[in-house]
Amino acid sequence: MSDLQRLERHACFGGWQDVYRHHSASLGCAMNFGVYLPPQARQRPCSVLYWLSGLGCTEQNFITKAGAQRRASELGLILVAPDTSPRGAAVADDPAYDLGQGAGFYVNATQAPWSAHYRMYDYVVEELPALIEAAFAVRPGLRGVAGHSMGGHGALVVALRNPGRYRSVSAFAPIVAPSRVPWGEKAFSAYLGSDRTTWAAYDAVALVQQATGERLPLLVDQGEADEFLGRELHPEWLQQACALVGHPLTLRRHAEYDHGYYFVASFIDDHLDWHARALAG
Amino acid sequence: MSDLQRLERHACFGGWQDVYRHHSASLGCAMNFGVYLPPQARQRPCSVLYWLSGLGCTEQNFITKAGAQRRASELGLILVAPDTSPRGAAVADDPAYDLGQGAGFYVNATQAPWSAHYRMYDYVVEELPALIEAAFAVRPGLRGVAGHSMGGHGALVVALRNPGRYRSVSAFAPIVAPSRVPWGEKAFSAYLGSDRTTWAAYDAVALVQQATGERLPLLVDQGEADEFLGRELHPEWLQQACALVGHPLTLRRHAEYDHGYYFVASFIDDHLDWHARALAG
Repeated sequence: MSDLQRLERHACFGGWQDVYRHHSASLGCAMNFGVYLPPQARQRPCSVLYWLSGLGCTEQNFITKAGAQRRASELGLILVAPDTSPRGAAVADDPAYDLGQGAGFYVNATQAPWSAHYRMYDYVVEELPALIEAAFAVRPGLRGVAGHSMGGHGALVVALRNPGRYRSVSAFAPIVAPSRVPWGEKAFSAYLGSDRTTWAAYDAVALVQQATGERLPLLVDQGEADEFLGRELHPEWLQQACALVGHPLTLRRHAEYDHGYYFVASFIDDHLDWHARALAG
Repeated sequence: MSDLQRLERHACFGGWQDVYRHHSASLGCAMNFGVYLPPQARQRPCSVLYWLSGLGCTEQNFITKAGAQRRASELGLILVAPDTSPRGAAVADDPAYDLGQGAGFYVNATQAPWSAHYRMYDYVVEELPALIEAAFAVRPGLRGVAGHSMGGHGALVVALRNPGRYRSVSAFAPIVAPSRVPWGEKAFSAYLGSDRTTWAAYDAVALVQQATGERLPLLVDQGEADEFLGRELHPEWLQQACALVGHPLTLRRHAEYDHGYYFVASFIDDHLDWHARALAG
């Protein structure tokens, strides 16, 4: 914990929007993450909502564009927003926006050269929460996870694979079945290899169908004017899988909304309320 | 009006966040501006709040970072956010961030080479409102103006110089007396020349003291941890000038807040409410 370095601190809605940098043991590189500390955090431990961002994002996109701090300041929620991949000159990369740096897909890569650093699943599930819970006054075990697009995929996967670890999960325009769409097929082929049986561990639609224990309710918002809807997202596949096994899903489709942060900002308060209710216990 | 071109359209809080491009006759170049159309604008004409941004900003900063659309969607306010200077390869520039493109200071330049394009005062006061009022369903004459830093200066100046033209004005961390601080002295020397008597027409503290007619109440928010407070902003000069002549001023100082958009976002709702009250008539 000793290498945690604060890069930014801004007063925001009575609390603090910070950005920290640390050396990640899982990823083998320096990583930035944003932390919003609501005013309540000055007085008492608060629950934490982890936000996983989409392709090409850093820790900055959510904290500057989603407008989440206003409602989080009312609800007393800490918001933690990590970067989307390992970073740096020593880390494998690809010129495309949808592979390599900025496109970690929240998996533990098994294939060279990616396996040397690309362990975003471990980072998000284990290392980052351990760091946050050691460094900040948080209510132990009260974690929620949410995300957007690739990060919506990440949020669904980490919640579905770790019963009891998260009290709540939600997603905006998630890639619900990366095994079956171009973004996911490209990334999983590179990171996980050609044996598709290994892909199911990172595919929310597959995970919903395999789950046997706790069935954490899912909240998913999807814009109908999303430019990636028919090609990459397919929320109806998640809907069908949930219906098949009786997994609770609230899927809201919104006419006119596209894939970007104006969509996220328009409905982020509903997601924060959803998480705050689950985390109140 | 016929060259108005829509570059972006995003559903946002039930309305539309658009970005347009047009050829500005005042500036002699293409200009971008953001328009937020609240849901009420689908049914009826709405009032318009003009937002003037600070140094280095384009039309994007306010629309992506301030989180203003949420409250504007409730109040039925149209938000118009222009770029901060003329732009393009044919337009004079300077490598410094505080002169030339991105730093128009809302003046009509009289000195070469700036005088060829830098007429942001005319653009903001005359050309842009005429364009907006012709192209969108707006309530005629119901204009407010607000801004941040250099744009806070711009908002105060255009409102103080044009009694009756604006129903409301407010500013975040404005440069209240550009004639007397480094940013303003540099820009005004370049744009207006060495005769400082010409500078008073663009100096809010000077204008407050000269005003004889309508005294539009001013709302100003200032962060106490603003890194530019003592060097460039000096809200106490505005306070003293307003006290001297009885100009109504609400100056709010906020401990811990800095100069950035996290500060603006934290208090933008109060400003939107302030403008909506004045524009309701």
